[in-house]
Amino acid sequence: MNKNYIIANEWSVIEEGFDVDNVKASESLFSIGNGSMGQRANFEEDYSGKTFQGSYIGGIYYPDKTRVGWWKNGYPEYFAKVLNAPNWIGIHIQINQTSLDLNSCKVSNFRRELNMKEGWLSRSFNAILPAGENIQVTTKRFISVKYDEVGAIEYSVKALNFSGEIIFSPYLDAGIVNEDSNYDEHFWETLKIVEGQNNGSILAKTLKTEFYVATAMQVSFAINNTKVEVSQTNLVEEKKLTYSYNLKVNKGETATIYKFGSYVSSLNYKNEELLAVGIKNVQMAKEIGFEALLQSQVNAWKEIWKTADIIIEGDIKAQQGIRFNIFQLNQTYLGTDARLNIGPKGFTGEKYGGSTYWDTEAYCIPFYMATKDASVAKNLLLYRYNHLEKAIENASKLGFKNGAALYPMVTMNGEECHNEWEITFEEIHRNGAMIYGIYNYVNFTQDFEYVPKYGLEVMIGVARFWHQRANFSELKRKYVILGVTGPNEYENNVNNNFYTNYLAKWCIEYAVESIHKVKSEYKNDYKRILDKTNLTVQEISEWLKVADGMYFPFSEEKNVYLQQDSFLDKELIPVANLLKSERPINQKWSWDRILRSCYIKQADVLQGMFLFENRFGKEELERHFDFYEPLTVHESSLSPCVHSILAASIDRMPKAYEQYLRTARLDLDDYNHEVHEGCHITSMAGTWMAVVQGFGGMRVWEDGILSFNPQIPAEWKSYSFTINFRGTIIKVYKSQTDCKFLNESGKELKLIVNNKPITVPSNQLVEV
Amino acid sequence: MNKNYIIANEWSVIEEGFDVDNVKASESLFSIGNGSMGQRANFEEDYSGKTFQGSYIGGIYYPDKTRVGWWKNGYPEYFAKVLNAPNWIGIHIQINQTSLDLNSCKVSNFRRELNMKEGWLSRSFNAILPAGENIQVTTKRFISVKYDEVGAIEYSVKALNFSGEIIFSPYLDAGIVNEDSNYDEHFWETLKIVEGQNNGSILAKTLKTEFYVATAMQVSFAINNTKVEVSQTNLVEEKKLTYSYNLKVNKGETATIYKFGSYVSSLNYKNEELLAVGIKNVQMAKEIGFEALLQSQVNAWKEIWKTADIIIEGDIKAQQGIRFNIFQLNQTYLGTDARLNIGPKGFTGEKYGGSTYWDTEAYCIPFYMATKDASVAKNLLLYRYNHLEKAIENASKLGFKNGAALYPMVTMNGEECHNEWEITFEEIHRNGAMIYGIYNYVNFTQDFEYVPKYGLEVMIGVARFWHQRANFSELKRKYVILGVTGPNEYENNVNNNFYTNYLAKWCIEYAVESIHKVKSEYKNDYKRILDKTNLTVQEISEWLKVADGMYFPFSEEKNVYLQQDSFLDKELIPVANLLKSERPINQKWSWDRILRSCYIKQADVLQGMFLFENRFGKEELERHFDFYEPLTVHESSLSPCVHSILAASIDRMPKAYEQYLRTARLDLDDYNHEVHEGCHITSMAGTWMAVVQGFGGMRVWEDGILSFNPQIPAEWKSYSFTINFRGTIIKVYKSQTDCKFLNESGKELKLIVNNKPITVPSNQLVEV
Repeated sequence: MNKNYIIANEWSVIEEGFDVDNVKASESLFSIGNGSMGQRANFEEDYSGKTFQGSYIGGIYYPDKTRVGWWKNGYPEYFAKVLNAPNWIGIHIQINQTSLDLNSCKVSNFRRELNMKEGWLSRSFNAILPAGENIQVTTKRFISVKYDEVGAIEYSVKALNFSGEIIFSPYLDAGIVNEDSNYDEHFWETLKIVEGQNNGSILAKTLKTEFYVATAMQVSFAINNTKVEVSQTNLVEEKKLTYSYNLKVNKGETATIYKFGSYVSSLNYKNEELLAVGIKNVQMAKEIGFEALLQSQVNAWKEIWKTADIIIEGDIKAQQGIRFNIFQLNQTYLGTDARLNIGPKGFTGEKYGGSTYWDTEAYCIPFYMATKDASVAKNLLLYRYNHLEKAIENASKLGFKNGAALYPMVTMNGEECHNEWEITFEEIHRNGAMIYGIYNYVNFTQDFEYVPKYGLEVMIGVARFWHQRANFSELKRKYVILGVTGPNEYENNVNNNFYTNYLAKWCIEYAVESIHKVKSEYKNDYKRILDKTNLTVQEISEWLKVADGMYFPFSEEKNVYLQQDSFLDKELIPVANLLKSERPINQKWSWDRILRSCYIKQADVLQGMFLFENRFGKEELERHFDFYEPLTVHESSLSPCVHSILAASIDRMPKAYEQYLRTARLDLDDYNHEVHEGCHITSMAGTWMAVVQGFGGMRVWEDGILSFNPQIPAEWKSYSFTINFRGTIIKVYKSQTDCKFLNESGKELKLIVNNKPITVPSNQLVEV
Repeated sequence: MNKNYIIANEWSVIEEGFDVDNVKASESLFSIGNGSMGQRANFEEDYSGKTFQGSYIGGIYYPDKTRVGWWKNGYPEYFAKVLNAPNWIGIHIQINQTSLDLNSCKVSNFRRELNMKEGWLSRSFNAILPAGENIQVTTKRFISVKYDEVGAIEYSVKALNFSGEIIFSPYLDAGIVNEDSNYDEHFWETLKIVEGQNNGSILAKTLKTEFYVATAMQVSFAINNTKVEVSQTNLVEEKKLTYSYNLKVNKGETATIYKFGSYVSSLNYKNEELLAVGIKNVQMAKEIGFEALLQSQVNAWKEIWKTADIIIEGDIKAQQGIRFNIFQLNQTYLGTDARLNIGPKGFTGEKYGGSTYWDTEAYCIPFYMATKDASVAKNLLLYRYNHLEKAIENASKLGFKNGAALYPMVTMNGEECHNEWEITFEEIHRNGAMIYGIYNYVNFTQDFEYVPKYGLEVMIGVARFWHQRANFSELKRKYVILGVTGPNEYENNVNNNFYTNYLAKWCIEYAVESIHKVKSEYKNDYKRILDKTNLTVQEISEWLKVADGMYFPFSEEKNVYLQQDSFLDKELIPVANLLKSERPINQKWSWDRILRSCYIKQADVLQGMFLFENRFGKEELERHFDFYEPLTVHESSLSPCVHSILAASIDRMPKAYEQYLRTARLDLDDYNHEVHEGCHITSMAGTWMAVVQGFGGMRVWEDGILSFNPQIPAEWKSYSFTINFRGTIIKVYKSQTDCKFLNESGKELKLIVNNKPITVPSNQLVEV
């Protein structure tokens, strides 16, 4: 796999030259999406080389059969796949009756660009076909942010050295497969194919889940930019609809096809409406026209970048990297639909299954909260609120009672859908992230109303879970939590994971505090919640016994909290002492050896200290950082960002920058040799955090005041970012010499900068 | 599922009356085999009801793709299946052109008998066909112990109310499937079909493993017991060879087909010889004739029973139960081939995969050692010796070095072939059982020569493993073994499992002791082993550091060794306090709840005390029994027997008998509702041990003298068993009043009975 082939550019991801070995990686990197749907950057025309075809619709999934060695009670019933959906981008292209296929042509001047500023993907190349026809191809494609069920393609072929015929055969294909199917099952059933004049539609449904999806297309044509009508030939196959259009061109002329595509699904319409709505969508897109549609796309992305952009001066690769992360996050989720969430691969691949992990609460909410209106983060919280009943059901399957809720590790619809017991049953700290998400949101936005309306019920379910999940150890005379997997998945089934126990105790305390507040300030809501949950005063005092008596493993000798009870029985050999040939250990060591080693995949004790930084002194933080970081292999994409932020927080900028580099261009430079499978979407939010919370030192402590402590890596000239803080837009600029705050809103803002209060008047710049 | 339908009988398993719901269970219970091959008691004629077809050849397997959630480094590469082999028992039967199918006939007088004394299976029934033909069918079938590649069927149909035609269509079918295939793959490829006069053969090979197997048949016919020749019509299909023979019968006449079948495989012949050898086998069988062949079967089983039988008077169900266990063990393994072993389902089903578990060393060797010549147990040891290289390879895959050996948890050919990391990587105590098997054999047989010749190399590999697998805990200042699963599989990935640590220490000590002995007494062997293993004095002293400094979790307060480091953090609620509706917990509780509960699946600390009983005082044993047994749910078929023996050993006969009842008729009474999947073969050896070592109190302590301490359950009149002790055959008889020892051999035998030495002269009976 050729790495580092992406050309550095401030606003675009660019590939130049055609290399068959990069095709699958580029298909991931150049993916496009609009939060509702998205697709890999597959070629429109036929391609016989190695490719991974993928087009995905948010919320449409398939419950694949799980793969487990020996099924045991309580194992999840399925493994949810984000489904590869019917293909609408395809256009068979024939030049004088020979298929255009880059795998069998002589290709030159190949260039691919993902324009992140404006939200489109383009390609251009020259190809000489086997019989000698020389053509120049230019394409542009985008998925509309404004019209979120629609996408558009402009595909032009210029005849450079011949006069002849170009046949465009745009098609819809519902006969697609999933790369990541566990048992090679087909997931779609084609129900109906509707033909029309220059448009058509296929209705298909997913098996088992019975999502209905209409996929529609509309085409139009031009010769040398002049619109032409072309007669149409139809081919209807079992799962595929193809139209053929024969365009005669003279040497030097350019034939263009515009293809508009649309997905509409039973998530939003009645099944019987779908075919008609799909056609209406693509007809509308054609009426608007490719150029006007593209202009609306440019405008939409301009709006997104207004509050999301981070500018880095003096390091073009860093600039490209951070924008790529922000761009992909926005392509994956825009926050308009509380039924959707942020899958680990977004719309760029299939691996992992499910769409929602604790990544959302721990990494993504901070990003969306600070770069968009509060409604977006609120939608992410509501997603979990709406799954509360399923979380209670999930807990009851595992033997918990009385409305205890256990949120799933991986989910599409609230049900657990991951495979492995050591994760689904044991990585229960995720339940704490649900509550931390609420706390973080309320603290940042001051939208306390969310708690009585929605959040408190979630808190009660989760507090009940922790209360029941802990047990009293006669030996320790404390409450213990046995048999868990912490954030460090390189340990399984351990006892008293510090992070888990800490979150459990905190969840109960925060729930109780919130109950008291709701009781006194939102009496009607309180009564409603009491009725709904059967909460009793007695119960709360039982919870508090657990919280008050929670055990935390601590070593007097090392003066640190221990990751889990037995951590000090391990051989503690720093990562630096490992041979390079043994890294990454997850590719070189057998799983058991990793499990009993001291090596940490991602922040664990430190993750807790990251979330609750203000509860630990700086010296305490340093001590734990110095104990755990040298044992950390950072083999999760979610690890370096947290360490970067903590390092910055304890004034270790070189370490902070070192860790930042590991996260910022993870996919663009394909550090893990796996970008062909898709991008690491959720960790991209961590990269944003590493700049804003790490270098920028942004925090909102419990006093509710926005604070900063900006530092800058020695390698950069300057950086700046924008925060949407309760409707106030504040721009932060930091160079090697200067630090400025620009308040772009109509009211003044009080900040704390470098531990000193300052005021930034409305629409003014303040230099610190 | 109808339970308890088996009719009590001293020597036979009997079913009367035809019940479609019992067919699959009976197919398991009435299974027949000869140690080299075996088969479920499927009907010869067509059967359209629910059936589980299975015929198996020892040593022939298929490496099925594993099912794992997320493949991790070091996971086994395949899951070995004992393969369902081509069918040779089938005979389509047509009465006046209507197929005989018990699922569509009116069946009466149905009787099935498995005669354990003589080693054959019979069936008889009356059937009225849809068109009214009334027939009486009698069949007899066996797999020859003497000619171990051959089986024989006698199948007679009497026309009770009609004259007409009976068409026998015996066939060979290589188009078989495996119930237990992970991905519904086909495992066999048919290579050649050879037709002959009254005989035929199919050559097939297994995919991937490329075992070649010829399946042959030979038929002959009789009318009213008079041999007849019948003309033959051949039908050759892709994977099946069928001959048809039309016999005209008059009312009252009986038509009989004799069908002889044979498997021969590339384990024993060259591929190109197989078809010919198969045909030769079945021709030979036909020459000998069904009756003579049957007589040789009766004689062979008489010989087996001579030393294997246990007689129980006063409890016919107990008598049937113990003989069923002994019979099935002998059907599964006869000890003549060191490449074979004892699968958990023997030849009665497919579940679990693989053929060899630590059950062999811990449970089966004692049985075979005491009921057969030493060569049989020695073959079981050689099986592991021959796999030593694979065990070293297995350990090196997991990062161990310098010839450390880790025997697989489940295997066919020495490679690990189980699915789950918590078992394959962590249930490493099995490595200790390998050495205990050697120790036990040498101690019982006094064949010390086995050690220098074979055993010591195994001991060195295993000692190296334990030395590397333990690590020094700075915290405990002791050697610890982290991340294991003990015999109690209801805990996973625990630290310092007492049983595992105890075995590890003992293995090293026994290895070192054996090295010293070999060094001084077998100098040539010593030199050879030194050269082969590169063993050094320095290395041995490193091992001993680990053995000497091994950590054992112990509670001062409870005064017991702890199952693992964190056992006392659990809530210790006796099994007796669990609701009946929550039992068995493995069907009622989610897996994580089981893992963090105190409930023990099978003996764990007690398993160690069982193996090394003489190293613990009786009071110490009682204390541990009283601590652990009340927390034990006995949800492994291997659990009750050990507890029964220990209970007898601490003079608690009611408890011993209670536990004995849970093991003795496990399959016959289908306690676990799963006998349709096959019988629990390896635990049957535990049942034998429960009588001989438990009630009989048989031991051979390190002084090498055979000792007994016979007790008898109040419910029995008497019991007696036979022991082959170093070639001396000793019969032990115990009634409520008497205890007798009969020495059936030519030399006197010194015994210890009830802690007192006695001498039993040659061919004499001594009453105690």
